[in-house]
Amino acid sequence: MLLPFPTPFDNDSGLDQRALRSNIERWNASGVAGYVPLGSTGERVHLGDDEYQKLIEVTRARVPNNLAFIPGAGQQSVRATIDEARIAARLGADALLVITPNFYKSEMTQNALVNYYMAVADASHVPLLLYSVPHLTGVTIQPETIARLSEHENIVGVKDSSGDILALAETIRLVSNDFVVLTGNGSGLYPALCMGARGGILAIGCIAPRLAVAIYDAFQSGEHERARTLQQQLTRLTRAILVRYGISGLKAALDMLGYTGGRVRAPLSDSSEEARREIAAVLKETEMMNESGVESLESGVKS
Amino acid sequence: MLLPFPTPFDNDSGLDQRALRSNIERWNASGVAGYVPLGSTGERVHLGDDEYQKLIEVTRARVPNNLAFIPGAGQQSVRATIDEARIAARLGADALLVITPNFYKSEMTQNALVNYYMAVADASHVPLLLYSVPHLTGVTIQPETIARLSEHENIVGVKDSSGDILALAETIRLVSNDFVVLTGNGSGLYPALCMGARGGILAIGCIAPRLAVAIYDAFQSGEHERARTLQQQLTRLTRAILVRYGISGLKAALDMLGYTGGRVRAPLSDSSEEARREIAAVLKETEMMNESGVESLESGVKS
Amino acid sequence: MLLPFPTPFDNDSGLDQRALRSNIERWNASGVAGYVPLGSTGERVHLGDDEYQKLIEVTRARVPNNLAFIPGAGQQSVRATIDEARIAARLGADALLVITPNFYKSEMTQNALVNYYMAVADASHVPLLLYSVPHLTGVTIQPETIARLSEHENIVGVKDSSGDILALAETIRLVSNDFVVLTGNGSGLYPALCMGARGGILAIGCIAPRLAVAIYDAFQSGEHERARTLQQQLTRLTRAILVRYGISGLKAALDMLGYTGGRVRAPLSDSSEEARREIAAVLKETEMMNESGVESLESGVKS
Amino acid sequence: MLLPFPTPFDNDSGLDQRALRSNIERWNASGVAGYVPLGSTGERVHLGDDEYQKLIEVTRARVPNNLAFIPGAGQQSVRATIDEARIAARLGADALLVITPNFYKSEMTQNALVNYYMAVADASHVPLLLYSVPHLTGVTIQPETIARLSEHENIVGVKDSSGDILALAETIRLVSNDFVVLTGNGSGLYPALCMGARGGILAIGCIAPRLAVAIYDAFQSGEHERARTLQQQLTRLTRAILVRYGISGLKAALDMLGYTGGRVRAPLSDSSEEARREIAAVLKETEMMNESGVESLESGVKS
Repeated sequence: MLLPFPTPFDNDSGLDQRALRSNIERWNASGVAGYVPLGSTGERVHLGDDEYQKLIEVTRARVPNNLAFIPGAGQQSVRATIDEARIAARLGADALLVITPNFYKSEMTQNALVNYYMAVADASHVPLLLYSVPHLTGVTIQPETIARLSEHENIVGVKDSSGDILALAETIRLVSNDFVVLTGNGSGLYPALCMGARGGILAIGCIAPRLAVAIYDAFQSGEHERARTLQQQLTRLTRAILVRYGISGLKAALDMLGYTGGRVRAPLSDSSEEARREIAAVLKETEMMNESGVESLESGVKS
Repeated sequence: MLLPFPTPFDNDSGLDQRALRSNIERWNASGVAGYVPLGSTGERVHLGDDEYQKLIEVTRARVPNNLAFIPGAGQQSVRATIDEARIAARLGADALLVITPNFYKSEMTQNALVNYYMAVADASHVPLLLYSVPHLTGVTIQPETIARLSEHENIVGVKDSSGDILALAETIRLVSNDFVVLTGNGSGLYPALCMGARGGILAIGCIAPRLAVAIYDAFQSGEHERARTLQQQLTRLTRAILVRYGISGLKAALDMLGYTGGRVRAPLSDSSEEARREIAAVLKETEMMNESGVESLESGVKS
Repeated sequence: MLLPFPTPFDNDSGLDQRALRSNIERWNASGVAGYVPLGSTGERVHLGDDEYQKLIEVTRARVPNNLAFIPGAGQQSVRATIDEARIAARLGADALLVITPNFYKSEMTQNALVNYYMAVADASHVPLLLYSVPHLTGVTIQPETIARLSEHENIVGVKDSSGDILALAETIRLVSNDFVVLTGNGSGLYPALCMGARGGILAIGCIAPRLAVAIYDAFQSGEHERARTLQQQLTRLTRAILVRYGISGLKAALDMLGYTGGRVRAPLSDSSEEARREIAAVLKETEMMNESGVESLESGVKS
Repeated sequence: MLLPFPTPFDNDSGLDQRALRSNIERWNASGVAGYVPLGSTGERVHLGDDEYQKLIEVTRARVPNNLAFIPGAGQQSVRATIDEARIAARLGADALLVITPNFYKSEMTQNALVNYYMAVADASHVPLLLYSVPHLTGVTIQPETIARLSEHENIVGVKDSSGDILALAETIRLVSNDFVVLTGNGSGLYPALCMGARGGILAIGCIAPRLAVAIYDAFQSGEHERARTLQQQLTRLTRAILVRYGISGLKAALDMLGYTGGRVRAPLSDSSEEARREIAAVLKETEMMNESGVESLESGVKS
C-alpha cells in the first residue's frame, strides 16, 4: 500500500513544507509501504519545476529507507520526461511512476506508447512504473502493451487506475511473476489482490491508511470475508469523498482527520460547505472520525 | 452457472429444433444450474415472435425441473414487454431476464428505468431479473437504481454484463442478501464471486460449462488460488473467441466441440476460415479439444 | 422538406386515426414536399406490426400524389427488414427510409452495413434511403460507405441525422449528383443546403413547416442572409423543444399549435407542466403562437 | 485566415530559426490575416519555456504590423497561465489563444471554465481568444459559456475546433456581433462563414494559404458556388493530410511544397515513406504541386 498524497499549500498557495513533513510522519506510523508524491493526486500539473524539486527533497528527507519513494513523472515529450526523470533520480527517487503522454491522444497508439516508455526507460537512472489513468488522459495502456514493456529491465511495474479489473487481470495473466501490478482504484483493492495484483497506490489510503493496509493483510492471511467487508468500507469512503469531490474532497477529509490537506490550486475549486458536511457525515458513519478523536476505527482495525 | 445459449439455425436459416434438444441434453449433464435462452447471445432480435415461442416450448420440454429456465425478454415499449413476458410465463418460464429499453437512449434516465421495470414487474406473472448490458444498449442500470428496484417483490436479481466489477460490487453492497447478483462476463466470474456475486450467466459457459462450474466450486470451497488459475483459462477462451469473434465465434467453437452451433443470421456474418483456425488453435492450447475427443480437459476439470 | 411526424395516440394509447388525418391535411397546405412516418420520431419501435400497417394505410390515403410518401423501415435482421419493406411497398410507399441495424453495434462494421443495405435493396420493390442516426443507434454510416451504397440503383439517398455537417459535406463530395442527401437536424438545414444537401427530413418541421420551407426557398433564391436568420429561429425551436424535451416536447408543442400531438408511449414520458410552460414560452417568443391564433409568424413567413 | 503554423526543428531537434523566418516570409505574401504560433499544431507541449519565448521573439520580428500575431498560451493552473500570458504579451503578442485546462477533465465544468478564463482575462495585458479543441482536451466550451465569457472586455473571440458547425452556429447566435468566432477546422471554413463566423485559424492553411483565402474572398463577394467548390478542395487536403497523418503529415507536405516542415518531436513520429507517397499524390491530384513548381494552382486561385 503506497500513498499518492496530495500536495499541501499554505495560505499564499505556496508549498506548505511544514504540513508535508507532519503528514508524512503520521503516515509513516500507519504501516504503509511507501509514497508516490507528485502524481495526479499531487497536482503535479499545477506545480512549477522548482516546486517539483522542492517537494521531492522535503519528502525524501522524511521517508524512512525501508519505505518506497516513487515520485510521479512524465511530460508530453520524451526529452522533457527524460530531463525530469534524471532530476527526480538525482534527488533520491527509488523509482518513478511515469504517466502516459496524452495531449495528442489520437496519435498515442500502443506502438507510440511502447516507443515512449522504451526511450524513457533507456535513459532513466532509476526503474520506472507505467501509469495508465484513462479517465484523466484519454489514453489506455493495453495489457498486451504492458506485457511488451515489462520485458525492459528498467520497467518494473504498472499502476492501473482504469477501474477495469478485468483488464488488470489480463495484464497479470500476461506478465511474468516479478512484474509489479498495482491498482490505483480505492474501490478495487480487494478484487485486484484476488486477481493477483501486488497492492495499490491509493489516494483514499491517505485518509484511511490502516484500513487499506488491513485489507491487504486480511487478503494475505486468507481471510477473504474480512477483506471483502473492509473493502466495502473503503469503497464507501472512496465513492463519497474521492469519486464525488475529487482532490479538494480528499484534502477536506484530511483536514477533518487532523492531517493538513489545505487548499487546491485553481482551476480546481475548494470544497463547498455542503461538500464538507457530507464528507464529515461519511467519516462519522464509517467511524473514521468520532468525538473523542480521529481515526478511531482506524486504530482498531488491526486488533 | 446459467447458460445463455445461442439459437441454432438449420441450413435454411430456420430454427433447428433437433440441434437445440441435443445441445441441451449435453449441457444438462455438465453441472450447470440452468438456462437463459433468447437473450443477446440467443439472437432474440433476429427471431420472429413465432420462433420466440417455439424456442421456449422446445427448451422447456428438455430442461429438467431442478434447473432454472429463465428466457430473455424485453421490447422497447412497456406494453410490448408485458405482452411478451406473459407469453413466456404461460409457456413455462421460471423467471425472465429483461433487457433495458434502449432505442431512445438519452431519455432512458435512471428514473425512466425504474418506471419501466416497476410497470413490467407489476404485470408479470413470473419474477424478473434486470439485465444491464451497456456495450449493446448504451444504457447502464446504476447500482443505486438496482437497489431501488430490488425492493419490488417481483424483481429478484440482476445480470450485470458491464464488465465493471467495481459497479457490480457496489450493487452488492447496496442490495439485501437475497437479491441475486450475477455477472455476464466470462472474464469476470471469479472476481465477481469474490465481491459477493451469486454466479454468472456466461455465454462462454456454453463451450466450457465444466470449467465455469469448476471455478464456482473452487470458490465455494475456499480454493482461491485454484479458482484464479481456472479463471485465467476461461478468460483466455472468452477473449479469443467471444470478445474477438462474437456469436459466430461461439457457434464455430460449439461446432468444433461436438455441439451444434450453426450459422448466424445476417447482418451478423459467419466466422471466416481464418477465424475458425484461430478458434481451433485456442481450443487446442487450452486443451478444450484434442485429437481423441472434445472437452478432454473439461472432463478432467473437476477431478 | 419532408415531415417525419410523430404518431398520435388516443386516450387509450391506441392509434388516433382521426388526429392523424387532420394533422396531415393541415401539413398538406404548408408547402412541404412529403412525409416520412414511422421513423424514430414516429415511435416505430413502440408500435405493433398491425399498427405499423394501419398507419401506412391511413397516411397513404391522405397524402396527395404530388407529395412524397416514405415510411420508415428497418428491423435488426435482414430477413425481417425485407419482409417489412415488402409490406410497406405493397401498402403504397413511394420509397423507404431504412435505419441501420444496431443491436450488435460492435459487429456493425462498414462492411456489414454495405452487405445489409445491398441485401435489402436487392429485395425491396421500392427505392431505399439510408438512415444514419448515431445518437440513437450508436452506428454511423461513413461517407465512403454511403458512396459505395449509392451505386446500387435501388438506393437513392440518405438521411444524415448525425449533426455532423462536415461528414454530410464529405458525403456530398463523394456521391454523384443525383443521389439525394438530406439532413435530419433541424439546426442544420441551412448549412446542409450550403454544402449541397437537397433538403431535410426535420421533426421540428412538424410544428414549423412554413418556417422550414422558407429557409429552403430563401436558399434556393440566393437570399443567404435571410436563410441564415430564419435558420436561427428554427434552431431556437429545435434546441428548446426537441433537443431538450424529445418527442413528448414535440407532441406538446403540436397540441399548443392546434395540431394533435397527444401522448407518448412508456417508457417515454409525457411532458411535465414545467416543460409545457417552457415550450409555450418559446413558441410565443418566436411568434409561432400568439393570442389571436397559432402560427402567426408562420403565416407571414413567406410574404 | 490565420495560420497556426507548426514549429520547425533542425536536425538536432532544436528550434530552426532560419526555417521559421523563411516560412513566415513566404506566408506573408499569401494574403493571410495573421499567425497563431504555439498552439496545438505548434507542438507547444513539446517545447521548453525558453523555446516558447524564443519562438515568439523570432516570429514577432518577421510578422508585419498589419497582420495579427496571436500566440497560443495556457497551462493547467491559473497561476502558470497568467505568468505565461504576461511573458507573451511582453514579447509583443497582439492577443493570445488560450486553450482550456484539461488534466482534471471531470472537474472542468462550465463554471470552472468561466472562473478560469475570467481570472486569466483579468490578469492578462492583452486580449484573449478562447480555444475549444475537445478531440485533444476532452473539454468543450459550450456556446452558453462562450456567451457568458464574451461579456468580459478582455475576451474578444473564440477558436472552435470541435468540428461541430451547429454548436458554432449556436455560439454566433448567442454572442454580440463584435465577438470574433473563428473555426479551427479546415473542412469547415465555408459552412462556418455561412453561419456567421468571421474566419478561420486553419493548420491546413499553412500548405494552402491562397486556397483558404480564396474561399474567404469568394464567400465575401457572394460567390457561394465557387466557395463551396474551393472548400471541397481544402477538405480533400485536410482529410488526406491532417486528419490522416496529423502534424507530421502537415510537416511532410510543407517540405514537399518548398517550405521547411521538418521533423516532429517524440512521442509523435515522423511520416513513413508510405505516408509521404500518399501525401505527394494528393498534392498532385489537387494541383497543389506540379512538375514545374509548387503551388501552381495556388498561384492561380485568385485570378
